[in-house]
Amino acid sequence: MAAAAAPPPPPSAAPDPTFSATLPENPVGNPIFVRIRLACNNDVPHIHKLIHQMAVFERLTHLFSATEASLSATLFNSLPFQSFTVLILEVSQVPFLQDQHQNNPLYPPVVRIINLDAPINDPEAETFRSGADVVVAGFVLFFPNYSTFLAKPGFYIEDIFVRECYRRKGMGRMLLSAVASQAVKMGYGRVEWCVLDWNMNAIKFYEEMGAEVLQEWRICRLAGEALQAYRD
Amino acid sequence: MAAAAAPPPPPSAAPDPTFSATLPENPVGNPIFVRIRLACNNDVPHIHKLIHQMAVFERLTHLFSATEASLSATLFNSLPFQSFTVLILEVSQVPFLQDQHQNNPLYPPVVRIINLDAPINDPEAETFRSGADVVVAGFVLFFPNYSTFLAKPGFYIEDIFVRECYRRKGMGRMLLSAVASQAVKMGYGRVEWCVLDWNMNAIKFYEEMGAEVLQEWRICRLAGEALQAYRD
Repeated sequence: MAAAAAPPPPPSAAPDPTFSATLPENPVGNPIFVRIRLACNNDVPHIHKLIHQMAVFERLTHLFSATEASLSATLFNSLPFQSFTVLILEVSQVPFLQDQHQNNPLYPPVVRIINLDAPINDPEAETFRSGADVVVAGFVLFFPNYSTFLAKPGFYIEDIFVRECYRRKGMGRMLLSAVASQAVKMGYGRVEWCVLDWNMNAIKFYEEMGAEVLQEWRICRLAGEALQAYRD
Repeated sequence: MAAAAAPPPPPSAAPDPTFSATLPENPVGNPIFVRIRLACNNDVPHIHKLIHQMAVFERLTHLFSATEASLSATLFNSLPFQSFTVLILEVSQVPFLQDQHQNNPLYPPVVRIINLDAPINDPEAETFRSGADVVVAGFVLFFPNYSTFLAKPGFYIEDIFVRECYRRKGMGRMLLSAVASQAVKMGYGRVEWCVLDWNMNAIKFYEEMGAEVLQEWRICRLAGEALQAYRD
């Protein structure tokens, strides 16, 4: 059956999730809408820029070789949470529209209002615009891992990143919580990620989130020429 | 079409891989056939025992809660290399039969002959028997990870284990090489795993294999009650 043009809206008693997070009647400070939603291939240009900003922050741009094409070719090839998965962090001055993101049946977005002390001046708002009133502020990329002792999958977070002007406002906590909540929902056993041992702010933050920092384990990496030596 | 009973063997010029690794005419020392093949659900009882032995070796049995049922429920749910993947290490005094393992189209086994200084006395041979002349000696469990800087998948090795009486004979090297070769074959960017910082023998071995031990990174883990706190 072909879609009819502009049908009248059906009567509905269901609450409109657009307004499930509305501004308080007497807003205090500077409220901002914050959303975490599933990323899709259209987000690749923003994801690419965010990864590059992370490489700059970590002073590791010499290791950065990702392109929009290589990200597109390797992400979004499976159902979310089954393999490499990206959640996008967005901010808006107004409630999020009921678009395909807000109504994604695979992952209903997390929406919160954060009351800021002062409005945020985002010098890159145009670069990271993802909708009429929406700007991308960060992302998290994660994928399943496996514990043989638990005989259960878990999630490993490869990257969690919030753009500089949006930091220290609880958005990183929202991103990490979103992954942890999804792990609990799926009956998974643990969530793991890595931190640089000199990054005391991050370690303090992660410990406050309930994480244990494993002191005795070191990562071994086989890459580049050393890996190519194993070509059959 | 129903399968015909016992058809005559077709004429074939293809080499029989059973004999691609035959004993030398004048064997020196004590040769043993070693095979790495894809694991399947039938291997779960052996995999379970191997994981338990690893927990004993690492003095972490208090963290061990895997059962055969929980392993069966969480492994072998996808194509090999796409998610959690197990390779089994087996030894035999005679060439491996042309069975379903040897002819697995998803992963042609790796077979080598190792010349031992002395015959191996395996006190658990019956417990780990997987065929008339075949005994399970170890395993490796790994799964895809992802590097955002490379925009490429890699492999993360969760466990690599060789039973005590088979150690220091090059079989661990065979297991690690099998994963690295598979990564190269798939165009992946790196292979990673973890090591305890006081396990100098392992660190030396991994460095000889070409791996870099990353000194600055620490693993953060959210598990148990701390993870359950994120229940929505």
